[in-house]
Amino acid sequence: MSPDRTDRPGWVSVLPVSARPDPAPDRKLGIALLGCGVVGSEVARLLITQAADLRARIGRDFELVGIAVRRPNRTRPGLDHELFSTDAEALVARDDVDLVIEVIGGLEPARSLILAALNRGASVVTANKALLAEDGGTLFTAAERTGTDLYFEAAVAGAIPIIRPLRESLVGDEITSVIGIVNGTTNFILDKMHTEGAGFGEVLAQAQELGYAEADPTADIEGFDAAAKAAILSSLAFHTRVTIADVHREGITEVTSSDVASAAAMGCVVKLLAICQLAPAGTDGERTVSVRVHPAMIPLSHPLAAVGGAFNAVFVESRSAGRLMFYGPGAGGSPTASAVLGDLVTVARNRLRGATGPGESTYAQRRVTSIDDVITRYHISLTVADQAGVLATVATCFAEHNVSLETVQQKAMQSSTVGQAAPAGAQLVLVTHAARDADLSATVRALRELPEVYEVSSVMRVEGDGS
Amino acid sequence: MSPDRTDRPGWVSVLPVSARPDPAPDRKLGIALLGCGVVGSEVARLLITQAADLRARIGRDFELVGIAVRRPNRTRPGLDHELFSTDAEALVARDDVDLVIEVIGGLEPARSLILAALNRGASVVTANKALLAEDGGTLFTAAERTGTDLYFEAAVAGAIPIIRPLRESLVGDEITSVIGIVNGTTNFILDKMHTEGAGFGEVLAQAQELGYAEADPTADIEGFDAAAKAAILSSLAFHTRVTIADVHREGITEVTSSDVASAAAMGCVVKLLAICQLAPAGTDGERTVSVRVHPAMIPLSHPLAAVGGAFNAVFVESRSAGRLMFYGPGAGGSPTASAVLGDLVTVARNRLRGATGPGESTYAQRRVTSIDDVITRYHISLTVADQAGVLATVATCFAEHNVSLETVQQKAMQSSTVGQAAPAGAQLVLVTHAARDADLSATVRALRELPEVYEVSSVMRVEGDGS
Repeated sequence: MSPDRTDRPGWVSVLPVSARPDPAPDRKLGIALLGCGVVGSEVARLLITQAADLRARIGRDFELVGIAVRRPNRTRPGLDHELFSTDAEALVARDDVDLVIEVIGGLEPARSLILAALNRGASVVTANKALLAEDGGTLFTAAERTGTDLYFEAAVAGAIPIIRPLRESLVGDEITSVIGIVNGTTNFILDKMHTEGAGFGEVLAQAQELGYAEADPTADIEGFDAAAKAAILSSLAFHTRVTIADVHREGITEVTSSDVASAAAMGCVVKLLAICQLAPAGTDGERTVSVRVHPAMIPLSHPLAAVGGAFNAVFVESRSAGRLMFYGPGAGGSPTASAVLGDLVTVARNRLRGATGPGESTYAQRRVTSIDDVITRYHISLTVADQAGVLATVATCFAEHNVSLETVQQKAMQSSTVGQAAPAGAQLVLVTHAARDADLSATVRALRELPEVYEVSSVMRVEGDGS
Repeated sequence: MSPDRTDRPGWVSVLPVSARPDPAPDRKLGIALLGCGVVGSEVARLLITQAADLRARIGRDFELVGIAVRRPNRTRPGLDHELFSTDAEALVARDDVDLVIEVIGGLEPARSLILAALNRGASVVTANKALLAEDGGTLFTAAERTGTDLYFEAAVAGAIPIIRPLRESLVGDEITSVIGIVNGTTNFILDKMHTEGAGFGEVLAQAQELGYAEADPTADIEGFDAAAKAAILSSLAFHTRVTIADVHREGITEVTSSDVASAAAMGCVVKLLAICQLAPAGTDGERTVSVRVHPAMIPLSHPLAAVGGAFNAVFVESRSAGRLMFYGPGAGGSPTASAVLGDLVTVARNRLRGATGPGESTYAQRRVTSIDDVITRYHISLTVADQAGVLATVATCFAEHNVSLETVQQKAMQSSTVGQAAPAGAQLVLVTHAARDADLSATVRALRELPEVYEVSSVMRVEGDGS
């Protein structure tokens, strides 16, 4: 028995949607697709071949009304030629478009098209991490203002459900850290360097041949792609607007096979990590956020260490839930299309309910700290003069910069691990305790000035302690 | 610029909620908590200590208006004594209760209380896997009819977000298989048997001492808990109503240290798995569903093999997304409270938007097949007479039941792996190719009848092939 709840004042706003008559139950939902590359063509294909299931799950029939592309005359098997148009603006402006899928990528024209769609009341599903990380605020504000949805599960870690878990499943918890392997290209390269002992350049060329790296691999290997994803993840995790400009970024181009060997020697593996952390409260009670992307050594016992090839994984720590990990394929047409269609069904359902999903949440407005203030550990390899007192000099240099040492190893020189040009000497491998990153990098600068130090052959952060 | 969309007929139903005036913006959302055990007390504590954050995330103030317990006079530090009552029915009937959290567990009175709440328009968050697996349909139907939400992330795998990913993130994809380690107690026991070589009884006693197993461990070790979760997971994955009665269930009480050693010898580990699979389409074009819980050997290379201790993990395969894994703590007060509060924030937001989340989806109505028709592989250890022709006899027995063999190993007898009472003989270890489960178990029955077979010392399914 369902009592009439409208007679109580507090209940008026919560009258169930199913009780409201639907004025247009026979109208199909119109979908516009912007972009028809690897992801877009797979989305279009699935919208057609999986139509019956998608219809049942949405609860309403739908129609792909148009696809905006740059080259409309290219052959696209299975897709009606009539669907294609080069006029994306006209497509998003159509009256019969309720939902827009944006898989063009890049800042423009994607931003203008998404804004045009939201402003005229259409909901948007996008895979565009670069745009969200650069100017997500503008888009979310437009969605909020117009009562539309902006969903973006495909923007981070392909098909791995990570956006919804962060913004919905864990929304009752306090997330303290998100550490992700969110770029498949760099993970493929580092994994190969690790398993085959090959050098960066060699493996990059191999990755390009196999299609794991693009002809211009800059966005991947310099960490721009991972940094965009880090900005998105930290915004969600910490209820704070974080843009790509806030992310400290270092790529993997300077990772050497000697670094990888050093990591292996200490039971670690080198990974390009996107690290989003909530700092412990300082004396002012304020908790800040740090967001960074850089290669790091992590112990083999850490769950992220086993993530091989082009796979992605995101490791989340929160106060109540503890440690969670999400793992799967991070890219590719099919996995990304899966994420796009999951969002599409959700925004379509929201639309039929006359509601929207969770919007941007930035209430916490935490300050993003500089990399200088991040507390981390370094692994440092030095070639030093093989003479008495050198270790004392080196140790003093660390102490003067407030960095204490966890382990120090003196190794016999091996020509294979030191460049041929390096002068004869001893090799010191040091791992520090946690210290301010600024102090650590000042230490490294000072070490380079010491006459007893011939070469600082490797400097890398060590993460995932105690896992 | 947001155009007025009400002048177009198709848009009337999609008028954004934010455009509707909220008639009671100052009214607090009232929350009732049913149960105050390990999970409930943690939920209550967090509702009080994390109130500011939860309020910001919901977008409205809330109040914990009452807690229904059996023993109201028990001391519960930090919780106002006035909140407690033994009259749960009166609590859910209160006018100021918008949201009900049910963490009592079991069938009754949980079912009646949830139904009463839904029927008077309150949304419900529950962690009650037994009830959902037994009679979820009744509850979901009530929620659908009354326009309320029934959320249950905490019912499966504790804090690991798995319900939302299955019912929302992957809703645009076709899930073909869900394999979970969803019971921490049995995983703890099997892990200990594996790492320490200890026997089942010994480890169970240890688990009870450490609090990982209850005084009456039946629900865990006999697989009832995992079977309930398997029913919930398969309902979501396959858009089909699956109840616990549909789940084939075998516990771990008959797993011996010899089974665990056999698994290790073939590069496997024994896990209690909840396996939900979509069968390939048969000649009639119909795809069926199989749902089963039993111990199985899985290769060490499978992502689930590394899930140790009391942790849980769920491995999902889908047509587009590929292979995904979700990992984390599967039980405990804090992790479960995290899942409950994530749901609470979501249903509260839905309520403020005048909408509901996705309800039960059973449109596919697939048939659940019997275990007999499941295609699987067996690992079988036999003690046989040490005489010529035995292998031929055994192999013929398999062939007569349409089961082909993948590997056969004849081992020298070791007294440590065979019971003292067993007569002297040879040991045969056989692994079959995939076959119908009914044929495999008929083979085992026939083997037991052969005079040359002294003992069938171990029979276990092998899963996770090719991972």
